[in-house]
Amino acid sequence: MTKPRGSLGRLEEALLRYTEIRGVAPPRELRVAALIFCADHGVVEEGVSAWPAEVTRQMALNFVNGGAAINVLCRHYGIVPRIVDMGIRGAAVAGVLDRRIAEGTRNFTRQAAMTAAECRRAIEVGRRLALEAAREFDAVLCGEMGIGNTTAATALLCAYAGLDPAEVTGSGAGLDEEGVRRKAGVIRKALALHPSRERMEIAANLGGFEILAIAGAIEGAGEARVPVILDGFISTSAALIVSPGARWPVLYSHCSAEAGHGRMLDFLGARPLLNLDMRLGEGTGAALAVGILQAACRLYHEMATFEQASVSEKK
Amino acid sequence: MTKPRGSLGRLEEALLRYTEIRGVAPPRELRVAALIFCADHGVVEEGVSAWPAEVTRQMALNFVNGGAAINVLCRHYGIVPRIVDMGIRGAAVAGVLDRRIAEGTRNFTRQAAMTAAECRRAIEVGRRLALEAAREFDAVLCGEMGIGNTTAATALLCAYAGLDPAEVTGSGAGLDEEGVRRKAGVIRKALALHPSRERMEIAANLGGFEILAIAGAIEGAGEARVPVILDGFISTSAALIVSPGARWPVLYSHCSAEAGHGRMLDFLGARPLLNLDMRLGEGTGAALAVGILQAACRLYHEMATFEQASVSEKK
Repeated sequence: MTKPRGSLGRLEEALLRYTEIRGVAPPRELRVAALIFCADHGVVEEGVSAWPAEVTRQMALNFVNGGAAINVLCRHYGIVPRIVDMGIRGAAVAGVLDRRIAEGTRNFTRQAAMTAAECRRAIEVGRRLALEAAREFDAVLCGEMGIGNTTAATALLCAYAGLDPAEVTGSGAGLDEEGVRRKAGVIRKALALHPSRERMEIAANLGGFEILAIAGAIEGAGEARVPVILDGFISTSAALIVSPGARWPVLYSHCSAEAGHGRMLDFLGARPLLNLDMRLGEGTGAALAVGILQAACRLYHEMATFEQASVSEKK
Repeated sequence: MTKPRGSLGRLEEALLRYTEIRGVAPPRELRVAALIFCADHGVVEEGVSAWPAEVTRQMALNFVNGGAAINVLCRHYGIVPRIVDMGIRGAAVAGVLDRRIAEGTRNFTRQAAMTAAECRRAIEVGRRLALEAAREFDAVLCGEMGIGNTTAATALLCAYAGLDPAEVTGSGAGLDEEGVRRKAGVIRKALALHPSRERMEIAANLGGFEILAIAGAIEGAGEARVPVILDGFISTSAALIVSPGARWPVLYSHCSAEAGHGRMLDFLGARPLLNLDMRLGEGTGAALAVGILQAACRLYHEMATFEQASVSEKK
């Protein structure tokens, strides 16, 4: 190619990683499926969110109607979205794929968020959907929606990485300072109630159905050898859950503005592609990263070589 | 819009900045012109580049034939490129807009890179091309090609910011360690020969025709109230030249892997959108940033409001 070796930096790295995962060169046009997992969280009754729980269901409907940020970005980049109900409160939402485990998790300051069986089922849903997507697409993007899920993701981070909630609890979708303090206290209480250090017990005690589904999607992507592009703080927390022995085909898309995300990425040894101070979730940061990957794929296929362009080589 | 306020982070900031510059809301489809200025550098005879000087001309031809990275990205994002010969050695290159000031600058370790009159002419070329582009486009991207131009840009950085070449000289398009040391020595020699602190004298003594054209494009963009999206190390050096009093309509696209770029951006108080370890030039980093801005414009126009989507507001 007519460029100094390595001069496309992270784009070249991403293409190499793609090739390593897939075992084939990147395609000219990268076809991407977005799995957007939605679920509610029992811990919301502790007052950990600036938004009412009903917003999970309302946003799922907004996704179906194409009005959310992730819809716009999917249209813009030609990404095919699939909205999955992993456990929204109330009746099933029309137009959303029904994979409901329960009507939200239980309040994990009082009991485990879910049973071990529910945890396994949520993982299996994500795994199967990723395997299915891998038959038609070159990569799978994971996003989520769930009022209260930064609380679950922060609890998972603290449990897996051994951190204090005060260090990493953030404002989620817009808590004030007092709210952040209350949220950290709620997480501390949950960690005290659930002292288990066992990987899957932590996940069942403190996780969310959408987070477990993303963990399952990572496993399914691993089986199918397809890259899985994770979004922000919540999606990344799923990477804490999957077995640490294997090398998962994960691409970290962005570092969000949520307080604990940088620490979480450091703990995972991950260096995300973008850092745009976003904190919207849904898969929006991952979609922007897909846009960069699509550009990289075109560069790989359409740039002239030194010979084709009659350009002199380096001295 | 159905998202927490500010949750799109840098995308929202960029749209606000666009509106501030243009005085109107961002369009749904952002039309962007890319001005790619090419020129040669007399200082190349000091052995400061890993590539032969003839590569400037060869790459200009590659641009015309559509085989370079910037061409691929322009096609991908619908950006309209304009290749401008500001002073390539040898005869004019067919298909390239001829705005040649001279056949490259003079070797600035022996004399001024250009006369004051040449410097003014180069600025005027960029200014007029930006004004012209502003009649048809919503934003102007500036890129460049010129073997030896990281040496000129580094010399400008040292002169304007009062830095030592050893601190900020980088490998450009691929110098080894020994080459970087030699290049820093060449820059130190040039700085000693040209002690002037006067802004336009520094530019004429140490600049390049493509760099001055970009400075002119910034001025033209300021007059036309159109955003100008700068690329990497070389393009950013043009922002050192323009009058420091005014607030220019500059968007800094990315921080490159070239050693001095971070320092240069800090000196300018600039926080670029992307950081992808790229160091290709041509306008490639700026083109990727345009891709992000285009996505932001679509979000602005296509997202549903809380009312439209019947989503509850924050508590």
